[in-house]
Amino acid sequence: MTKRLPDASPLNDDGVIGIPPAAGSDEHLRETPLASDWILRGNFLQVKRDRVALPDGREASREYIRHPGAAVIVPLLDDGRVLLERQYRYPLGRVVTEFPAGKLDPQEPPLRCAMRELLEETGYTAREWAYAGVMHNAIAYSDERIEIFFARGLRAGERRLDEGEFLDLVELSEAELDRMALHGELSDAKSLVCLQWLQRWRAGAWPLQWMTADEAATR
Amino acid sequence: MTKRLPDASPLNDDGVIGIPPAAGSDEHLRETPLASDWILRGNFLQVKRDRVALPDGREASREYIRHPGAAVIVPLLDDGRVLLERQYRYPLGRVVTEFPAGKLDPQEPPLRCAMRELLEETGYTAREWAYAGVMHNAIAYSDERIEIFFARGLRAGERRLDEGEFLDLVELSEAELDRMALHGELSDAKSLVCLQWLQRWRAGAWPLQWMTADEAATR
Repeated sequence: MTKRLPDASPLNDDGVIGIPPAAGSDEHLRETPLASDWILRGNFLQVKRDRVALPDGREASREYIRHPGAAVIVPLLDDGRVLLERQYRYPLGRVVTEFPAGKLDPQEPPLRCAMRELLEETGYTAREWAYAGVMHNAIAYSDERIEIFFARGLRAGERRLDEGEFLDLVELSEAELDRMALHGELSDAKSLVCLQWLQRWRAGAWPLQWMTADEAATR
Repeated sequence: MTKRLPDASPLNDDGVIGIPPAAGSDEHLRETPLASDWILRGNFLQVKRDRVALPDGREASREYIRHPGAAVIVPLLDDGRVLLERQYRYPLGRVVTEFPAGKLDPQEPPLRCAMRELLEETGYTAREWAYAGVMHNAIAYSDERIEIFFARGLRAGERRLDEGEFLDLVELSEAELDRMALHGELSDAKSLVCLQWLQRWRAGAWPLQWMTADEAATR
Protein backbone atom coordinates (compact mmCIF):
# COMPACT_ATOMS: atom_id res chain seq x y z
CA MET A 1 0.00 0.00 0.00
CA THR A 2 1.89 3.03 -1.22
CA LYS A 3 0.46 6.46 -0.81
CA ARG A 4 2.25 9.21 -2.58
CA LEU A 5 2.85 12.39 -0.69
CA PRO A 6 1.60 15.26 -2.79
CA ASP A 7 4.68 17.38 -3.30
CA ALA A 8 3.00 20.43 -4.72
CA SER A 9 -0.34 22.16 -4.79
CA PRO A 10 -2.87 19.87 -6.44
CA LEU A 11 -3.91 22.68 -8.75
CA ASN A 12 -1.92 23.15 -11.92
CA ASP A 13 -1.25 26.59 -13.39
CA ASP A 14 -4.69 26.80 -14.86
CA GLY A 15 -6.16 25.68 -11.57
CA VAL A 16 -7.39 22.37 -12.93
CA ILE A 17 -7.20 19.59 -10.39
CA GLY A 18 -4.44 17.09 -11.09
CA ILE A 19 -6.63 14.01 -11.02
CA PRO A 20 -6.85 11.73 -14.04
CA PRO A 21 -10.07 11.98 -16.07
CA ALA A 22 -12.88 9.68 -15.01
CA ALA A 23 -12.80 6.17 -16.40
CA GLY A 24 -14.74 5.42 -19.59
CA SER A 25 -17.42 3.75 -17.53
CA ASP A 26 -18.29 7.10 -15.97
CA GLU A 27 -19.33 8.72 -19.26
CA HIS A 28 -23.02 8.52 -18.28
CA LEU A 29 -22.29 10.74 -15.27
CA ARG A 30 -19.74 13.19 -16.65
CA GLU A 31 -20.32 16.91 -17.09
CA THR A 32 -18.34 18.75 -19.76
CA PRO A 33 -17.25 22.38 -19.34
CA LEU A 34 -18.48 24.75 -22.06
CA ALA A 35 -17.60 28.16 -20.63
CA SER A 36 -16.16 29.54 -17.40
CA ASP A 37 -16.42 32.99 -15.81
CA TRP A 38 -15.42 34.58 -12.54
CA ILE A 39 -18.52 35.85 -10.75
CA LEU A 40 -16.76 36.91 -7.56
CA ARG A 41 -13.23 38.11 -7.02
CA GLY A 42 -13.32 38.74 -3.29
CA ASN A 43 -10.58 39.51 -0.84
CA PHE A 44 -10.85 35.96 0.39
CA LEU A 45 -13.33 34.06 -1.81
CA GLN A 46 -12.98 33.48 -5.54
CA VAL A 47 -16.09 32.11 -7.25
CA LYS A 48 -16.60 30.77 -10.76
CA ARG A 49 -19.72 30.05 -12.75
CA ASP A 50 -19.30 27.50 -15.52
CA ARG A 51 -21.70 26.50 -18.24
CA VAL A 52 -21.62 22.70 -18.54
CA ALA A 53 -23.08 20.02 -20.79
CA LEU A 54 -24.86 17.32 -18.80
CA PRO A 55 -24.55 13.64 -19.74
CA ASP A 56 -27.83 13.86 -21.71
CA GLY A 57 -26.58 16.85 -23.72
CA ARG A 58 -28.65 19.45 -21.90
CA GLU A 59 -26.91 22.41 -20.30
CA ALA A 60 -26.65 23.61 -16.72
CA SER A 61 -24.61 26.11 -14.71
CA ARG A 62 -22.21 25.27 -11.88
CA GLU A 63 -21.06 27.79 -9.29
CA TYR A 64 -18.09 26.94 -7.10
CA ILE A 65 -15.27 28.36 -5.04
CA ARG A 66 -11.73 28.11 -6.38
CA HIS A 67 -9.60 27.32 -3.36
CA PRO A 68 -5.80 26.91 -3.18
CA GLY A 69 -6.07 23.85 -0.89
CA ALA A 70 -5.21 23.46 2.75
CA ALA A 71 -3.33 21.34 5.26
CA VAL A 72 -4.44 20.14 8.68
CA ILE A 73 -2.19 18.71 11.37
CA VAL A 74 -2.76 16.08 14.08
CA PRO A 75 -0.06 17.11 16.61
CA LEU A 76 0.71 14.22 18.98
CA LEU A 77 2.03 15.30 22.36
CA ASP A 78 4.47 13.05 24.20
CA ASP A 79 1.87 12.24 26.87
CA GLY A 80 -0.52 10.80 24.27
CA ARG A 81 -2.80 13.79 24.07
CA VAL A 82 -3.21 15.92 20.94
CA LEU A 83 -3.00 19.65 20.45
CA LEU A 84 -6.01 21.55 19.16
CA GLU A 85 -7.09 25.18 18.85
CA ARG A 86 -10.09 27.17 19.94
CA GLN A 87 -10.81 29.86 17.40
CA TYR A 88 -13.73 32.16 16.72
CA ARG A 89 -15.29 31.14 13.41
CA TYR A 90 -17.29 34.06 12.21
CA PRO A 91 -19.57 32.19 9.78
CA LEU A 92 -20.77 30.06 12.73
CA GLY A 93 -20.81 32.94 15.20
CA ARG A 94 -18.92 31.05 17.86
CA VAL A 95 -15.65 29.58 19.06
CA VAL A 96 -14.82 26.24 17.44
CA THR A 97 -12.46 23.53 18.69
CA GLU A 98 -10.39 22.31 15.76
CA PHE A 99 -7.07 20.83 14.74
CA PRO A 100 -4.48 23.37 13.50
CA ALA A 101 -4.89 24.05 9.80
CA GLY A 102 -4.29 26.63 7.15
CA LYS A 103 -4.47 27.50 3.49
CA LEU A 104 -1.57 26.82 1.14
CA ASP A 105 0.41 29.83 0.07
CA PRO A 106 0.91 30.11 -3.71
CA GLN A 107 3.06 27.18 -4.93
CA GLU A 108 3.47 25.93 -1.38
CA PRO A 109 3.69 22.13 -0.99
CA PRO A 110 1.07 20.88 1.53
CA LEU A 111 3.63 19.47 3.97
CA ARG A 112 5.55 22.77 4.00
CA CYS A 113 2.24 24.48 4.72
CA ALA A 114 1.56 22.05 7.58
CA MET A 115 4.97 22.74 9.15
CA ARG A 116 4.51 26.50 8.76
CA GLU A 117 0.98 26.57 10.18
CA LEU A 118 1.89 24.40 13.17
CA LEU A 119 4.73 26.76 14.02
CA GLU A 120 2.83 29.99 13.39
CA GLU A 121 -0.36 29.01 15.19
CA THR A 122 0.97 26.90 18.06
CA GLY A 123 4.71 27.63 18.32
CA TYR A 124 5.45 23.90 18.14
CA THR A 125 7.98 22.21 15.91
CA ALA A 126 7.93 18.44 15.36
CA ARG A 127 10.73 15.87 15.17
CA GLU A 128 8.71 13.64 12.82
CA TRP A 129 5.99 14.03 10.24
CA ALA A 130 3.70 11.62 8.40
CA TYR A 131 1.24 12.08 5.55
CA ALA A 132 -2.16 10.54 6.27
CA GLY A 133 -4.61 11.35 3.49
CA VAL A 134 -6.84 13.86 1.83
CA MET A 135 -10.39 15.08 2.21
CA HIS A 136 -12.64 17.22 0.04
CA ASN A 137 -14.82 19.17 2.40
CA ALA A 138 -17.44 20.88 0.22
CA ILE A 139 -17.69 18.94 -3.02
CA ALA A 140 -20.92 20.63 -4.09
CA TYR A 141 -19.42 24.12 -4.21
CA SER A 142 -15.66 24.15 -3.67
CA ASP A 143 -12.58 22.53 -5.16
CA GLU A 144 -10.85 22.68 -1.77
CA ARG A 145 -8.78 19.68 -0.75
CA ILE A 146 -7.35 19.35 2.74
CA GLU A 147 -4.23 17.22 3.16
CA ILE A 148 -3.94 15.56 6.57
CA PHE A 149 -0.59 15.28 8.35
CA PHE A 150 0.54 13.87 11.68
CA ALA A 151 3.34 15.43 13.71
CA ARG A 152 5.12 13.94 16.75
CA GLY A 153 8.15 14.64 18.87
CA LEU A 154 6.72 18.10 19.54
CA ARG A 155 8.79 20.86 21.07
CA ALA A 156 7.13 24.06 22.28
CA GLY A 157 8.38 27.44 21.10
CA GLU A 158 7.13 30.91 20.32
CA ARG A 159 4.06 31.13 18.14
CA ARG A 160 3.84 33.74 15.37
CA LEU A 161 0.19 34.48 14.81
CA ASP A 162 -0.77 36.46 11.74
CA GLU A 163 -1.98 39.94 12.47
CA GLY A 164 -5.61 39.76 13.45
CA GLU A 165 -5.39 36.08 14.37
CA PHE A 166 -6.56 35.12 17.86
CA LEU A 167 -6.67 31.56 19.13
CA ASP A 168 -6.25 29.43 22.25
CA LEU A 169 -4.47 26.09 22.44
CA VAL A 170 -6.03 23.07 24.12
CA GLU A 171 -4.57 19.66 24.88
CA LEU A 172 -7.10 16.84 24.68
CA SER A 173 -7.01 13.07 24.89
CA GLU A 174 -8.47 10.81 22.22
CA ALA A 175 -11.17 9.76 24.69
CA GLU A 176 -12.10 13.40 25.35
CA LEU A 177 -12.30 14.12 21.63
CA ASP A 178 -14.42 11.02 21.10
CA ARG A 179 -16.88 12.19 23.76
CA MET A 180 -16.92 15.71 22.34
CA ALA A 181 -17.70 14.34 18.88
CA LEU A 182 -20.56 12.26 20.26
CA HIS A 183 -22.06 15.30 21.99
CA GLY A 184 -21.66 17.70 19.07
CA GLU A 185 -18.85 19.68 20.73
CA LEU A 186 -16.40 18.62 18.03
CA SER A 187 -18.35 19.31 14.86
CA ASP A 188 -15.75 20.73 12.50
CA ALA A 189 -15.64 18.19 9.65
CA LYS A 190 -11.87 18.27 9.12
CA SER A 191 -11.34 17.76 12.86
CA LEU A 192 -13.75 14.80 12.95
CA VAL A 193 -11.81 13.25 10.08
CA CYS A 194 -8.55 13.91 11.98
CA LEU A 195 -10.01 12.12 15.00
CA GLN A 196 -11.01 9.26 12.70
CA TRP A 197 -7.45 9.03 11.38
CA LEU A 198 -6.09 9.13 14.93
CA GLN A 199 -8.37 6.31 16.03
CA ARG A 200 -7.84 4.14 12.96
CA TRP A 201 -4.09 4.66 13.15
CA ARG A 202 -3.97 3.75 16.85
CA ALA A 203 -6.13 0.69 16.10
CA GLY A 204 -3.43 -0.41 13.64
CA ALA A 205 -5.84 -0.18 10.70
CA TRP A 206 -4.56 2.93 8.90
CA PRO A 207 -0.75 2.95 8.94
CA LEU A 208 1.46 6.03 8.73
CA GLN A 209 4.95 6.32 7.30
CA TRP A 210 7.01 8.68 9.42
CA MET A 211 9.84 10.85 8.21
CA THR A 212 12.17 13.15 10.09
CA ALA A 213 11.58 16.89 10.03
CA ASP A 214 14.69 17.22 7.85
CA GLU A 215 13.29 14.83 5.26
CA ALA A 216 9.92 16.55 5.54
CA ALA A 217 11.49 19.94 4.84
CA THR A 218 12.62 18.69 1.42
CA ARG A 219 9.12 17.63 0.33
CA MET B 1 -26.65 11.75 27.26
CA THR B 2 -29.56 13.42 25.54
CA LYS B 3 -29.18 14.78 22.07
CA ARG B 4 -31.99 16.90 20.80
CA LEU B 5 -33.14 16.31 17.24
CA PRO B 6 -33.13 19.66 15.49
CA ASP B 7 -36.73 20.09 14.45
CA ALA B 8 -36.25 23.03 12.14
CA SER B 9 -33.61 24.70 10.07
CA PRO B 10 -30.86 25.94 12.37
CA LEU B 11 -31.04 29.36 10.77
CA ASN B 12 -33.59 31.77 12.14
CA ASP B 13 -35.33 34.31 9.92
CA ASP B 14 -32.39 36.59 9.98
CA GLY B 15 -30.12 33.68 9.14
CA VAL B 16 -28.34 33.80 12.47
CA ILE B 17 -27.33 30.39 13.69
CA GLY B 18 -29.37 29.19 16.64
CA ILE B 19 -26.44 28.55 18.92
CA PRO B 20 -26.10 30.37 22.23
CA PRO B 21 -23.54 33.18 22.29
CA ALA B 22 -20.04 32.18 23.30
CA ALA B 23 -19.35 32.00 27.01
CA GLY B 24 -17.89 35.03 28.74
CA SER B 25 -14.51 33.35 28.80
CA ASP B 26 -14.39 33.53 25.00
CA GLU B 27 -14.45 37.34 24.90
CA HIS B 28 -10.75 37.45 23.97
CA LEU B 29 -11.53 35.48 20.80
CA ARG B 30 -14.85 36.95 19.75
CA GLU B 31 -15.43 38.98 16.58
CA THR B 32 -18.29 41.46 16.53
CA PRO B 33 -20.25 42.24 13.36
CA LEU B 34 -20.23 45.90 12.30
CA ALA B 35 -21.78 45.76 8.83
CA SER B 36 -22.94 43.09 6.42
CA ASP B 37 -23.39 43.12 2.64
CA TRP B 38 -24.21 40.63 -0.07
CA ILE B 39 -21.34 40.44 -2.52
CA LEU B 40 -22.73 37.57 -4.60
CA ARG B 41 -26.30 36.59 -5.24
CA GLY B 42 -25.74 33.62 -7.52
CA ASN B 43 -28.11 31.00 -8.83
CA PHE B 44 -26.64 28.60 -6.32
CA LEU B 45 -24.17 30.45 -4.10
CA GLN B 46 -24.99 33.40 -1.83
CA VAL B 47 -21.96 35.20 -0.41
CA LYS B 48 -21.72 37.89 2.26
CA ARG B 49 -18.92 40.21 3.24
CA ASP B 50 -19.09 41.50 6.79
CA ARG B 51 -17.04 44.14 8.48
CA VAL B 52 -16.08 42.91 11.96
CA ALA B 53 -14.35 44.19 15.05
CA LEU B 54 -11.56 41.91 16.21
CA PRO B 55 -10.98 41.18 19.90
CA ASP B 56 -8.31 43.91 20.01
CA GLY B 57 -10.68 46.47 18.51
CA ARG B 58 -9.11 46.51 15.08
CA GLU B 59 -11.31 45.80 12.06
CA ALA B 60 -11.27 43.06 9.43
CA SER B 61 -13.55 41.72 6.71
CA ARG B 62 -15.06 38.25 6.59
CA GLU B 63 -16.42 36.66 3.40
CA TYR B 64 -18.61 33.59 3.70
CA ILE B 65 -21.31 31.56 2.02
CA ARG B 66 -24.80 31.64 3.45
CA HIS B 67 -26.06 28.07 3.16
CA PRO B 68 -29.50 26.69 4.12
CA GLY B 69 -28.00 23.56 5.70
CA ALA B 70 -28.07 19.97 4.53
CA ALA B 71 -28.80 16.41 5.59
CA VAL B 72 -26.80 13.27 4.89
CA ILE B 73 -28.05 9.71 5.32
CA VAL B 74 -26.29 6.47 6.29
CA PRO B 75 -28.68 3.91 4.73
CA LEU B 76 -28.18 0.46 6.32
CA LEU B 77 -29.15 -2.43 4.04
CA ASP B 78 -30.49 -5.61 5.63
CA ASP B 79 -27.34 -7.54 4.65
CA GLY B 80 -25.13 -5.15 6.68
CA ARG B 81 -23.85 -3.16 3.75
CA VAL B 82 -24.61 0.52 3.25
CA LEU B 83 -25.97 2.38 0.24
CA LEU B 84 -23.87 5.11 -1.37
CA GLU B 85 -23.94 7.11 -4.58
CA ARG B 86 -21.47 7.79 -7.34
CA GLN B 87 -21.99 11.27 -8.67
CA TYR B 88 -20.00 13.62 -10.90
CA ARG B 89 -18.82 16.54 -8.79
CA TYR B 90 -17.98 19.33 -11.15
CA PRO B 91 -15.70 21.33 -8.80
CA LEU B 92 -13.47 18.25 -8.49
CA GLY B 93 -13.78 17.25 -12.14
CA ARG B 94 -14.57 13.63 -11.36
CA VAL B 95 -17.03 11.09 -10.04
CA VAL B 96 -17.17 10.95 -6.24
CA THR B 97 -18.43 8.12 -4.02
CA GLU B 98 -20.54 9.61 -1.25
CA PHE B 99 -23.45 8.99 1.09
CA PRO B 100 -26.82 10.35 -0.12
CA ALA B 101 -27.28 13.96 0.90
CA GLY B 102 -29.05 17.12 -0.05
CA LYS B 103 -29.76 20.73 0.81
CA LEU B 104 -32.71 21.69 2.98
CA ASP B 105 -35.62 23.26 1.17
CA PRO B 106 -36.82 26.54 2.73
CA GLN B 107 -38.24 25.83 6.23
CA GLU B 108 -37.66 22.10 5.79
CA PRO B 109 -36.72 20.20 8.97
CA PRO B 110 -33.47 18.25 8.47
CA LEU B 111 -35.06 14.83 9.02
CA ARG B 112 -37.78 15.58 6.48
CA CYS B 113 -35.01 16.56 4.07
CA ALA B 114 -33.19 13.28 4.77
CA MET B 115 -36.34 11.23 4.06
CA ARG B 116 -37.02 13.19 0.88
CA GLU B 117 -33.45 12.98 -0.44
CA LEU B 118 -33.18 9.24 0.26
CA LEU B 119 -36.37 8.63 -1.69
CA GLU B 120 -35.60 11.00 -4.57
CA GLU B 121 -32.00 9.93 -5.10
CA THR B 122 -32.16 6.22 -4.31
CA GLY B 123 -35.83 5.20 -4.41
CA TYR B 124 -35.51 3.69 -0.94
CA THR B 125 -37.82 4.25 1.99
CA ALA B 126 -36.81 3.27 5.53
CA ARG B 127 -38.77 1.62 8.34
CA GLU B 128 -36.66 3.35 11.01
CA TRP B 129 -34.65 6.54 11.38
CA ALA B 130 -32.14 7.86 13.91
CA TYR B 131 -30.45 11.22 14.36
CA ALA B 132 -26.69 10.93 14.78
CA GLY B 133 -25.09 14.36 14.88
CA VAL B 134 -23.98 17.46 13.06
CA MET B 135 -20.90 18.59 11.21
CA HIS B 136 -19.76 21.97 9.92
CA ASN B 137 -17.84 21.29 6.76
CA ALA B 138 -16.23 24.60 5.80
CA ILE B 139 -16.02 26.75 8.92
CA ALA B 140 -13.63 29.25 7.34
CA TYR B 141 -16.05 30.32 4.61
CA SER B 142 -19.50 28.80 5.00
CA ASP B 143 -22.21 28.60 7.64
CA GLU B 144 -23.30 25.21 6.29
CA ARG B 145 -24.23 22.56 8.80
CA ILE B 146 -24.88 18.97 7.76
CA GLU B 147 -27.15 16.88 9.98
CA ILE B 148 -26.35 13.15 9.94
CA PHE B 149 -29.13 10.54 9.97
CA PHE B 150 -29.21 6.76 9.90
CA ALA B 151 -31.94 4.80 8.10
CA ARG B 152 -32.66 1.07 8.34
CA GLY B 153 -35.34 -1.38 7.28
CA LEU B 154 -34.85 -0.17 3.71
CA ARG B 155 -37.30 -1.01 0.95
CA ALA B 156 -36.41 -0.34 -2.68
CA GLY B 157 -38.77 1.68 -4.87
CA GLU B 158 -38.71 4.08 -7.78
CA ARG B 159 -36.26 6.95 -7.53
CA ARG B 160 -37.26 10.44 -8.58
CA LEU B 161 -34.13 12.27 -9.63
CA ASP B 162 -34.34 15.99 -10.15
CA GLU B 163 -34.04 17.08 -13.75
CA GLY B 164 -30.37 17.20 -14.67
CA GLU B 165 -29.40 14.86 -11.80
CA PHE B 166 -27.40 11.77 -12.74
CA LEU B 167 -26.06 9.28 -10.22
CA ASP B 168 -25.31 5.59 -9.70
CA LEU B 169 -26.03 3.60 -6.56
CA VAL B 170 -23.41 1.37 -4.95
CA GLU B 171 -23.68 -1.05 -2.05
CA LEU B 172 -20.54 -1.28 0.06
CA SER B 173 -19.52 -2.99 3.28
CA GLU B 174 -17.99 -1.13 6.20
CA ALA B 175 -14.70 -2.94 5.51
CA GLU B 176 -14.75 -1.81 1.87
CA LEU B 177 -15.41 1.78 2.90
CA ASP B 178 -12.63 1.62 5.47
CA ARG B 179 -10.17 0.42 2.81
CA MET B 180 -11.38 3.09 0.37
CA ALA B 181 -10.86 5.79 3.01
CA LEU B 182 -7.33 4.56 3.70
CA HIS B 183 -6.48 4.68 -0.01
CA GLY B 184 -8.06 8.07 -0.72
CA GLU B 185 -10.97 6.61 -2.70
CA LEU B 186 -13.44 7.86 -0.12
CA SER B 187 -12.34 11.46 0.37
CA ASP B 188 -15.62 13.34 0.67
CA ALA B 189 -15.51 14.79 4.19
CA LYS B 190 -19.19 14.24 5.04
CA SER B 191 -18.88 10.61 3.88
CA LEU B 192 -15.77 10.05 5.99
CA VAL B 193 -17.67 11.39 8.99
CA CYS B 194 -20.59 9.08 8.13
CA LEU B 195 -18.18 6.13 8.05
CA GLN B 196 -16.83 7.28 11.42
CA TRP B 197 -20.36 7.34 12.85
CA LEU B 198 -21.05 3.89 11.39
CA GLN B 199 -17.89 2.46 12.95
CA ARG B 200 -18.33 4.12 16.34
CA TRP B 201 -22.01 3.10 16.46
CA ARG B 202 -21.20 -0.51 15.59
CA ALA B 203 -18.43 -0.46 18.22
CA GLY B 204 -21.09 0.49 20.79
CA ALA B 205 -19.40 3.83 21.49
CA TRP B 206 -21.81 6.27 19.82
CA PRO B 207 -25.39 5.16 20.47
CA LEU B 208 -28.39 5.94 18.25
CA GLN B 209 -32.00 6.34 19.28
CA TRP B 210 -34.24 4.85 16.61
CA MET B 211 -37.74 5.96 15.75
CA THR B 212 -40.26 4.58 13.30
CA ALA B 213 -40.76 6.29 9.96
CA ASP B 214 -44.19 7.44 11.19
CA GLU B 215 -42.65 9.14 14.21
CA ALA B 216 -39.91 10.55 12.00
CA ALA B 217 -42.47 12.05 9.63
CA THR B 218 -43.82 14.23 12.47
CA ARG B 219 -40.42 15.78 13.28
